[in-house]
Amino acid sequence: MNQQETPLFTKLQQFASGNPLSFHVPGHKNGQVFPEHGATCYSPLLKLDMTELPELDDLHAPKGVIAQAQQLAKQFFQSEETFFLVGGSTSGNLAMILATCKADDYVIVQRNCHKSIMNGLELAGAKPVFLAPEFDERTNRYACPSYETMEKAIRKYPEAKAVIVTYPDYFGQTFPLKKMIELAHRHEIPVLVDEAHGVHFSLGKPFPPSALTLGADIVVQSAHKMAPAMTMSAYLHVNSKFVSKEKVAHYLQMIQSSSPSYPLMASLDLARYYLANFSERDMDALLKSVKRVRHILSESTYWDVLPQTETDDPLKITLQAKEGWPVKDIAEIFAQKGIYPELTTDKQILFIHGLRPFPDLDRLKKAVESAGDYLKNRKIHATIKATKLFAEPIQELALSYAKMNVYTYDSVPLEEGVGQIAAEAIIPYPPGIPLVIKGEVIKEEHIRVIKQLEAEGVSFQQRHRGVKIFK
Amino acid sequence: MNQQETPLFTKLQQFASGNPLSFHVPGHKNGQVFPEHGATCYSPLLKLDMTELPELDDLHAPKGVIAQAQQLAKQFFQSEETFFLVGGSTSGNLAMILATCKADDYVIVQRNCHKSIMNGLELAGAKPVFLAPEFDERTNRYACPSYETMEKAIRKYPEAKAVIVTYPDYFGQTFPLKKMIELAHRHEIPVLVDEAHGVHFSLGKPFPPSALTLGADIVVQSAHKMAPAMTMSAYLHVNSKFVSKEKVAHYLQMIQSSSPSYPLMASLDLARYYLANFSERDMDALLKSVKRVRHILSESTYWDVLPQTETDDPLKITLQAKEGWPVKDIAEIFAQKGIYPELTTDKQILFIHGLRPFPDLDRLKKAVESAGDYLKNRKIHATIKATKLFAEPIQELALSYAKMNVYTYDSVPLEEGVGQIAAEAIIPYPPGIPLVIKGEVIKEEHIRVIKQLEAEGVSFQQRHRGVKIFK
Ligand SMILES: Cc1ncc(COP(=O)(O)O)c(C=O)c1O
Ligand SMILES: Cc1ncc(COP(=O)(O)O)c(C=O)c1O
Repeated sequence: MNQQETPLFTKLQQFASGNPLSFHVPGHKNGQVFPEHGATCYSPLLKLDMTELPELDDLHAPKGVIAQAQQLAKQFFQSEETFFLVGGSTSGNLAMILATCKADDYVIVQRNCHKSIMNGLELAGAKPVFLAPEFDERTNRYACPSYETMEKAIRKYPEAKAVIVTYPDYFGQTFPLKKMIELAHRHEIPVLVDEAHGVHFSLGKPFPPSALTLGADIVVQSAHKMAPAMTMSAYLHVNSKFVSKEKVAHYLQMIQSSSPSYPLMASLDLARYYLANFSERDMDALLKSVKRVRHILSESTYWDVLPQTETDDPLKITLQAKEGWPVKDIAEIFAQKGIYPELTTDKQILFIHGLRPFPDLDRLKKAVESAGDYLKNRKIHATIKATKLFAEPIQELALSYAKMNVYTYDSVPLEEGVGQIAAEAIIPYPPGIPLVIKGEVIKEEHIRVIKQLEAEGVSFQQRHRGVKIFK
Repeated sequence: MNQQETPLFTKLQQFASGNPLSFHVPGHKNGQVFPEHGATCYSPLLKLDMTELPELDDLHAPKGVIAQAQQLAKQFFQSEETFFLVGGSTSGNLAMILATCKADDYVIVQRNCHKSIMNGLELAGAKPVFLAPEFDERTNRYACPSYETMEKAIRKYPEAKAVIVTYPDYFGQTFPLKKMIELAHRHEIPVLVDEAHGVHFSLGKPFPPSALTLGADIVVQSAHKMAPAMTMSAYLHVNSKFVSKEKVAHYLQMIQSSSPSYPLMASLDLARYYLANFSERDMDALLKSVKRVRHILSESTYWDVLPQTETDDPLKITLQAKEGWPVKDIAEIFAQKGIYPELTTDKQILFIHGLRPFPDLDRLKKAVESAGDYLKNRKIHATIKATKLFAEPIQELALSYAKMNVYTYDSVPLEEGVGQIAAEAIIPYPPGIPLVIKGEVIKEEHIRVIKQLEAEGVSFQQRHRGVKIFK
């Protein structure tokens, strides 16, 4: 086996070419039973949408082609063991937490983490110790917690069972992770890294170093975000003397479907192949294209393109609206030309460049040029900065998850929530990072920012208005 | 909106046809960044593999096209609310348990349930009360618990928070569920039904009645198993005055990826369309084909085709090896002709007919005719029946999940496990139903059956040999 091969994809294709007669699930029978108007899109891939037939291996007990495909991934990413995931980084984050933390164990965790980390902590019944992130003036956003905060937390909670960080953040920003890992390891605490946005760091320079090369114990990567895998495909890598691979496998089979999707798994095989065979020429062409996109986007008087340093992922390009120009309207300029960025916050727009040059950037140029026409008369009042959101650098929850699970709760208008304990996280989406954490006391500052974001049209991942508080 | 429409699929297709320029995830950029040798299979569907762009709605907070597609499903299946699932029935089973049971709550549950039910109970920290299934002489398999056992259990545990059953079983067999639901409801206990294998019961006669029409509170269906959806696509229906839809939604967003796959979701829209537009003519043609397959398969002296009653799913056709003919070798006769049944147990082979006639059954005929040649000289000794596996009709675990989570365990040879508490379920696969449950005392009878199954080549979903026991 070498990195030019794709054992799982190739096996599926070969199996399908034998024109097998299916008396098994799935019910579409290799695509032969399907609504006619869906067939053009679906049929070619439904041929690979198989079940665990003997020669096709079993994700939850791999011995054949899936084991081979994982083996190649493990070699490429340089882990001790690599698991294919079909439930997104979400399933990896849940499993890595369940595998390392039991009920009432302390866990040191970056406060501005993805909700799947919070959910994992809740399922485990762990006791999170949240570290507040620092506000970064350069990028005008919250970044990661400082080394000093981490050090204080480890000193205060040396019995913590894990340190959990997000690296890079959604915008591609990294931080000196290595020092933190060394610190945690000196206290025999494993470091779990949510690297959902960093699978392509495996390509090396000019990308920042990947968490695996920096010594992380478990690393979870959404292969669908920055590599060419299907959505919900992800990798979980283990490289550790502190954590049990067997436990990780146990919780992965618990959280994920007992009928994992073969098209998703095979796309993980293909995505690894794509990364492993990325040439210097590919890299040169890619970086040229990134430069060109940055250049086109920077030709505007309504926004800035945030500058980058070598700690940033070059594929993430962030626009920041200049004082008074509404971000939503700027996004609309692009949407009108059929151009879709990744996300829009209250002040920034994130563009993600793929791993290959765009064939044609004329449309992008036209969109930028049309900004003036579209934006005139849309100037608004300046927005207020929220740089003091997280007053306590190190913070435990006000209630344990076990208690939260038995307490009842009420829905009250936003203002009445101040001073109460939140019964539900409040999560602006995107990027899906909680502003208020379930189980913490709601502060006035929270309410102020929520209202401000709502006024700016940011959505919240909740089904109801107001806030839920424990009675 | 009517049942001839597929709002989610149609919207995705329409969006893709506008040739959007993607500066967002996924990394394959509508299929443009992908390994060449994978493109033929993947490209057509990658165009629909989108992310939560504003016009494409959000599964975890649906208001647009996903809400519309769910609405049509809800109308067709006649539920109060229908959720699209992208983590298989597994994610539905986990969520329905977490939404109804807290730590230390009693739950009455059929012992021979799918492992996802066990996993849900463990995640919730519930106290399961297992009901032993009855051995059914007609089908030569364990079926469901008797009404009397259920009655006794409810009398003994009237404070139980849920009753959980599997309906139909893997082989399509049903039982008088309605009476059990009425009994549970008289005690104000909701009934959660794992109907993974019964999504097509919504077509009405001659299929057995669906659990929703019998009054079940929550019903989970793998749309990929018996309807034409992609693998991992499933529905969760709620129809209850006892359970909170809000809690179900909460746990679904916890368990499932924050980037749910659009191809999977759209296939749920298409599968509902397929079922809703299934005509009488389709049904006639289907039943004729089933009859023909049964007829072809019954022309053998090496096995029987098990007869059916109206409580059985007609699409499930079970062969039973006659005394002395090895099931594995019988399965091999079919595999050699490229014909793949769903599963092989120690004595039976399950064939699943799809929702449409097979275009050509010649190969099947040839396979049956070739049996004699292939099987000669392969006769073996008769196997022993295991009809007294579950001695206790109503049984609690020997240890709580909370204790199991903190106790350490050992791996010992099979024989030394007798009398000890199992630290891991022992699950023959297929069909994936635990023989020994995590947390119960291992009996001699268990070990005898495990050894027998292993000798017959049945696989077990574990990573190691021997058994794990708590110290
Ligand atoms: C930082 C981070 N972690 C984890 C996830 C979850 O990954 P997935 O959507 O692949 O389940 C996301 C998704 O947006 C994320 O941004
Ligand atoms: C009875 C039963 N319930 C639940 C499941 C899990 O469903 P899925 O594989 O769709 O996650 C299965 C799968 O085989 C099953 O047989």
